[in-house]
Amino acid sequence: MSFDLSETLDLLDRTPAMLDALLRGTGASWHACNEGPDTWSAFDVVGHLIHAEETDWVPRARIILEEGEARPFEPFDRFAQLDRFKGWTLGQLLDRFAELRQASLETVRGWSLTGAQLDILGRHPAFGPVTLRQLLATWAVHDLNHLAQIARVMAKRYGDEVGPWRAYLSVLSR
Amino acid sequence: MSFDLSETLDLLDRTPAMLDALLRGTGASWHACNEGPDTWSAFDVVGHLIHAEETDWVPRARIILEEGEARPFEPFDRFAQLDRFKGWTLGQLLDRFAELRQASLETVRGWSLTGAQLDILGRHPAFGPVTLRQLLATWAVHDLNHLAQIARVMAKRYGDEVGPWRAYLSVLSR
Repeated sequence: MSFDLSETLDLLDRTPAMLDALLRGTGASWHACNEGPDTWSAFDVVGHLIHAEETDWVPRARIILEEGEARPFEPFDRFAQLDRFKGWTLGQLLDRFAELRQASLETVRGWSLTGAQLDILGRHPAFGPVTLRQLLATWAVHDLNHLAQIARVMAKRYGDEVGPWRAYLSVLSR
Repeated sequence: MSFDLSETLDLLDRTPAMLDALLRGTGASWHACNEGPDTWSAFDVVGHLIHAEETDWVPRARIILEEGEARPFEPFDRFAQLDRFKGWTLGQLLDRFAELRQASLETVRGWSLTGAQLDILGRHPAFGPVTLRQLLATWAVHDLNHLAQIARVMAKRYGDEVGPWRAYLSVLSR
């Protein structure tokens, strides 16, 4: 199904409340477990979403709208959150993410983007030309990608505890 | 990390609000899309969760507590929801699931299960002996499994729209 700006922003608007419902107030056994060395917990993923909100989505959209292909995006640091949020609580991360996301969506809605603007090209440091529409679709899919990751990481806490049912639970084998 | 009854029930308690935040009020473009023939949309998954709530988790737990291994569980119909919920709205499904989940958790909390009770064996029609603890762990992982599925199915709506970013979004290749 083709890109719909309003439905994309609607989905992006849902993520803070969805993460709250799933994570806020959980014990560390749920939100601090990961999939082994160099993998992320739910806590790490929320930190990553904060960092992306600050340095990726709206900043890149602004570069596209203001400078088009003339200025490549800054490369995104996928690991910044691992140091930056040491000592934070999960509640603090969820609060910060919700504030940033709300501000991001206010900015994008304020632009009242036209179809022609969605076609404007920017320059990705690895891929080359990308449209503003692709960036916004990616923002939504990136949320869903990390929601699926959080569900998988949490599920693996009970990878052994489910016993023979493991065979029916594909999330445990990914 | 080992099984914790209270944290398991806490997670199960979160699922209705989490699905509400993600799905209630979305356009059909988000909740009716699937991954192709014989695959499920978010709508279908919520129907499946309702059917499991009615016929799987608490009914099987009750069989274990009352009859142990003497009576095998009824086989679970994984496709019942596809006919049963035709004509329902997503809002009706979410309401029904929330009511059933609340009632399920009241029942289980009312049992005040001991560690010895969690060790009681029942009989799965395919696997043979399983403990009540394994059933309850599976209930939680089953929620997370289907949450990951919903996120994946919704993400694929924009499988083409993300353009070259597809390479970074593993949820699109599963």
